Amino acid sequence: MDKIKKRARDHGLTFGTLPTGKENTITDVPGVSVGQITLFEGEDIRTGVTAVLPHEGNLFREKVLAGTSVINGFGKTTGLVQIDELGLLESPIMLTNTFSVPAVTEGTLQYLLQENEEIGTTTGTVNVVVGECNDSSLNDIRGLHVRPDHANSSIKRASSHVGEGVVGAGTGMSCLGFKGGVGTSSRIVGDGTLGVLVVSNFGARNDVDLPTGSIMMIVATDYALNERQLQRVAKRTTFGLALTGSTAHHGSGDIAIAFSTAKKIDHEGDELERFKFLRDDHSVMNDIFNATASATEEAIWNSLFAAETTVGRDGNEERAITREEALEIRQSLVGMKD
Amino acid sequence: MDKIKKRARDHGLTFGTLPTGKENTITDVPGVSVGQITLFEGEDIRTGVTAVLPHEGNLFREKVLAGTSVINGFGKTTGLVQIDELGLLESPIMLTNTFSVPAVTEGTLQYLLQENEEIGTTTGTVNVVVGECNDSSLNDIRGLHVRPDHANSSIKRASSHVGEGVVGAGTGMSCLGFKGGVGTSSRIVGDGTLGVLVVSNFGARNDVDLPTGSIMMIVATDYALNERQLQRVAKRTTFGLALTGSTAHHGSGDIAIAFSTAKKIDHEGDELERFKFLRDDHSVMNDIFNATASATEEAIWNSLFAAETTVGRDGNEERAITREEALEIRQSLVGMKD
Amino acid sequence: MDKIKKRARDHGLTFGTLPTGKENTITDVPGVSVGQITLFEGEDIRTGVTAVLPHEGNLFREKVLAGTSVINGFGKTTGLVQIDELGLLESPIMLTNTFSVPAVTEGTLQYLLQENEEIGTTTGTVNVVVGECNDSSLNDIRGLHVRPDHANSSIKRASSHVGEGVVGAGTGMSCLGFKGGVGTSSRIVGDGTLGVLVVSNFGARNDVDLPTGSIMMIVATDYALNERQLQRVAKRTTFGLALTGSTAHHGSGDIAIAFSTAKKIDHEGDELERFKFLRDDHSVMNDIFNATASATEEAIWNSLFAAETTVGRDGNEERAITREEALEIRQSLVGMKD
Amino acid sequence: MDKIKKRARDHGLTFGTLPTGKENTITDVPGVSVGQITLFEGEDIRTGVTAVLPHEGNLFREKVLAGTSVINGFGKTTGLVQIDELGLLESPIMLTNTFSVPAVTEGTLQYLLQENEEIGTTTGTVNVVVGECNDSSLNDIRGLHVRPDHANSSIKRASSHVGEGVVGAGTGMSCLGFKGGVGTSSRIVGDGTLGVLVVSNFGARNDVDLPTGSIMMIVATDYALNERQLQRVAKRTTFGLALTGSTAHHGSGDIAIAFSTAKKIDHEGDELERFKFLRDDHSVMNDIFNATASATEEAIWNSLFAAETTVGRDGNEERAITREEALEIRQSLVGMKD
Repeated sequence: MDKIKKRARDHGLTFGTLPTGKENTITDVPGVSVGQITLFEGEDIRTGVTAVLPHEGNLFREKVLAGTSVINGFGKTTGLVQIDELGLLESPIMLTNTFSVPAVTEGTLQYLLQENEEIGTTTGTVNVVVGECNDSSLNDIRGLHVRPDHANSSIKRASSHVGEGVVGAGTGMSCLGFKGGVGTSSRIVGDGTLGVLVVSNFGARNDVDLPTGSIMMIVATDYALNERQLQRVAKRTTFGLALTGSTAHHGSGDIAIAFSTAKKIDHEGDELERFKFLRDDHSVMNDIFNATASATEEAIWNSLFAAETTVGRDGNEERAITREEALEIRQSLVGMKD
Repeated sequence: MDKIKKRARDHGLTFGTLPTGKENTITDVPGVSVGQITLFEGEDIRTGVTAVLPHEGNLFREKVLAGTSVINGFGKTTGLVQIDELGLLESPIMLTNTFSVPAVTEGTLQYLLQENEEIGTTTGTVNVVVGECNDSSLNDIRGLHVRPDHANSSIKRASSHVGEGVVGAGTGMSCLGFKGGVGTSSRIVGDGTLGVLVVSNFGARNDVDLPTGSIMMIVATDYALNERQLQRVAKRTTFGLALTGSTAHHGSGDIAIAFSTAKKIDHEGDELERFKFLRDDHSVMNDIFNATASATEEAIWNSLFAAETTVGRDGNEERAITREEALEIRQSLVGMKD
Repeated sequence: MDKIKKRARDHGLTFGTLPTGKENTITDVPGVSVGQITLFEGEDIRTGVTAVLPHEGNLFREKVLAGTSVINGFGKTTGLVQIDELGLLESPIMLTNTFSVPAVTEGTLQYLLQENEEIGTTTGTVNVVVGECNDSSLNDIRGLHVRPDHANSSIKRASSHVGEGVVGAGTGMSCLGFKGGVGTSSRIVGDGTLGVLVVSNFGARNDVDLPTGSIMMIVATDYALNERQLQRVAKRTTFGLALTGSTAHHGSGDIAIAFSTAKKIDHEGDELERFKFLRDDHSVMNDIFNATASATEEAIWNSLFAAETTVGRDGNEERAITREEALEIRQSLVGMKD
Repeated sequence: MDKIKKRARDHGLTFGTLPTGKENTITDVPGVSVGQITLFEGEDIRTGVTAVLPHEGNLFREKVLAGTSVINGFGKTTGLVQIDELGLLESPIMLTNTFSVPAVTEGTLQYLLQENEEIGTTTGTVNVVVGECNDSSLNDIRGLHVRPDHANSSIKRASSHVGEGVVGAGTGMSCLGFKGGVGTSSRIVGDGTLGVLVVSNFGARNDVDLPTGSIMMIVATDYALNERQLQRVAKRTTFGLALTGSTAHHGSGDIAIAFSTAKKIDHEGDELERFKFLRDDHSVMNDIFNATASATEEAIWNSLFAAETTVGRDGNEERAITREEALEIRQSLVGMKD
């Protein structure tokens, strides 16, 4: 499921003018890693877990700044309340199917409790962040096949390699009426990097057939942005999502989380914490906004091109998109009368 | 743990001028029921689950309108994103300890999947709402002793009787430096009723000793309020909380959820849904705001008066408040120079 | 400035699959009217006022439901706080240049005070809504040339005719590096109508030259939507804006306001107000989202095609876009490698 | 109107345990100044302007960090959208009556344009912040007696002296059924200071007589807090407001703005901006929250004790509160059965 595939750029599509990072993945942002567990078993288990780790250290002891954007809140993502209050991310960002949020939360909590014996005894709590999309068209989502251990395993597997398509949380997802899944992309902005990872599960081949989709969009950057600026960045994923034809349909839980690796905030510290942040009015901020939109758009197309035709629950099939179908969808966004 | 106890009013305290409902509990709102499971085992298990059910029917098939207020977002409550987007509550509101949110979410999900075979096959997903406070001073919270079945059991036990104090989610909680827990109160407003249930876990006996507390506040009413108005109501819990001396300290996750039982919204329906709502400018709206504040305040004091001295993890003890201590705290809010 | 011009569709561009209303203007929504005052005087006055009236009656006595979306809050729009709290619009929506917000607010207030002698004596206050973009590249914005009377005049002129381009609030605006201004479009959705009016002032011909732009987007519909649903609709303008190449640059205050004409809420009333609302899960809701995105996109292109080359302050010139330049911008959004 | 008056503490009331600043005014925060213009003319002009200046320099060139809290959004405050987006305050905070917001915005804009010739030509725009309460019970608010020049004059008069009661924006205000107005208070927290200024105009002597009140609460501190932390601080004003008996009635626009003078952010700068911020988990943060609540509460009582009986429009009279009435209101918050 992880052989060499042609990505969107290999098919000739271009996305804005900013250069990509070395691998064109979210892990081009130094320190960021991704781990995935794929559950592709029998005729109806098509699901999994994707973990995005902001850095290689202890995520609870060394937190990073983060911001969120709820584009359409028809979703069960957990952990956003505390990010919004404190501006901090202190767990991996976990992605899975809708009904596996509790199992993945519990597994991630267990991982964090093991790593940090002081949590819950001398030092309070930890906020686990888990996002989701609904893979029930291909997956027996009622079976709750993802278990807490899978969360732990996906975290342990984290590396700079990012599988795309039918993998991890993307295993059972559908997008624009085709097989969707995990996709990623990155941009070089000045002397920094910005990367995006998505689980694509929105849209339909036509407006008659409307699944209850969703998209989770994770943005990482090594630019020194504060929590408010990261909210602004998270919001710019919408502009990339829109360029794939989405209008965030009612049933589509569209949620973005952005974090910066530029500064690690120790769990404990003295009275004052020192920061340096990019000025909002510096021109590179607009480049960061552009990078977010175009890397989001490209990550979605990468998820589609990487995803093979998949048969799952009740024999349901989601077919891989072809280059021609992709170009037609894109071209339809800038339609001209014959 | 459920014998007859003197409540705040029995000690002579009064709270505003509106009359209470018959039992002075959240279940005075017709149809609302509460179920609790208490885990009080060995020397260090002091925790539990409290379920608040908006009505006796199928909560997924017949949703109610709801609104939330995050007063201080240092908390792990799950399910708020979708309430904020759609204005609907379609699960019981479950309360437990911080690290048991995933187990209780999973158990509640299993309950809802059993009740509704179509979820995840023909009709999308369901949004489970679970709030929490941190009971780690008395409870071995790292032990994850609450399991999914406990959620199910608490829902099944739901009735119009509401235990207070060291019970359900309140079993291991501490408040204002004393033993806290579950408390409830209600008000009659015109020809309607409003009730509040809290899990109290905030504050300290002095400002030196600051636990990472929290308070969950659930408001039920049979007044016909829409989701925006219910947000307004949820926000008014702050005004009751403040009258117990709280200023929502940094580590205190203070979250309110309000729902109305006046209108049940079918899971499926025709194009249009018909409603009637109280006008915001009708004078009874201010009574509802007053009722929310005073019932919240009284519920907190009820939680304190009902809670017996409890010894838990590592021999830690939280002592029951005395009437004199309670009056002293209250009087200190309106201090006069000697 | 109001002769017959070729609009985006006349140039062959298409936008989604939903049909337009009769005139393809926001005033296709029954009852909605638009009035504009253009100040195009001397060498450096290039500004004006655009008023959007939800219905022909007394807007204060018969309010309409409304919702807002702040996509990028670098803007000086006034009146949003109360819309967000109460879900009501009780004034015309006024649009002008950034520094004329106070004059237009005062003029609109005077208009409303004249129409309603009881405001400020027996019945409280009125919330005036004024949006803005910064036309300082062509206009002597420091001169504060718009006066309160201009607001009054624009309201009095309101009709079903909507001038586009260099007119009203759009007189001095620039967009995508060309002359921008007022644009409008509409869609038929089932048996209802949705219309959008924009003042376009965002973007630049290239990323080196970044003006502090903005876009105001007003959405009207006769569908029965509540205030929460109207927030969802307002948010969908982003998806149309994105399809013109915007990523909401730092300095661009991008704000949307949506209202429904389906129900008029009397200023005074009995205890209960009766409503019927479209169910969120009805398929027409997604059509409404699609209509919002595509009408917003088309309104922006209409603003560009309608706008003639304009010379203003300090001899600054903003040139009219050509069909070829427009097609090139659109095509660049779906770029392919040569 | 500015003679020596007994303040709340002089009457024996105490508010928490933190010490006050030297003058017990918002101007105890170094650099903060307040200027007021009182319009007390004829039989029905009872209004004015109060300006709070964060520092003595050029407020546009040297911005300060700020955060807001809309407790009840039934209000016409302008300028919050941009503070929420950028976290910056770049104008004085102006307070006046509801219908004078446009005039005061225009006057403040003119002041800022005069001080900064580059605004609107080479450097974009400026965000003016104006809050309001409705003084129509005593003032001929329809007369629009506050003019732009009054804004300018109030700014020019700014000093460390803060008049209380029937002065500035407080001239025509009513509170808790008595004459309200301007009040202020401060706290020493560790080696920093926090001050609050309010315009009190909420509540009624009984629940039958419900004015459409409001309260504006301005918080200043020299503690190094970021924009998110200042939102947290702004929110804590609610806890002080609640201790005066408010439950934020429907018609009461209750809005708080908090700013920090610790860091001035130049209008223009290099790529990075350096900051140091107080850690959220440092115990002094809770002291800051406590200080905010108790200084807000005291400022409200100071506004009441300072306000003389005032007769205004139509011979309406708002009577000064007596010490006994104040104590009765306070004591009623902690009621005991006889």
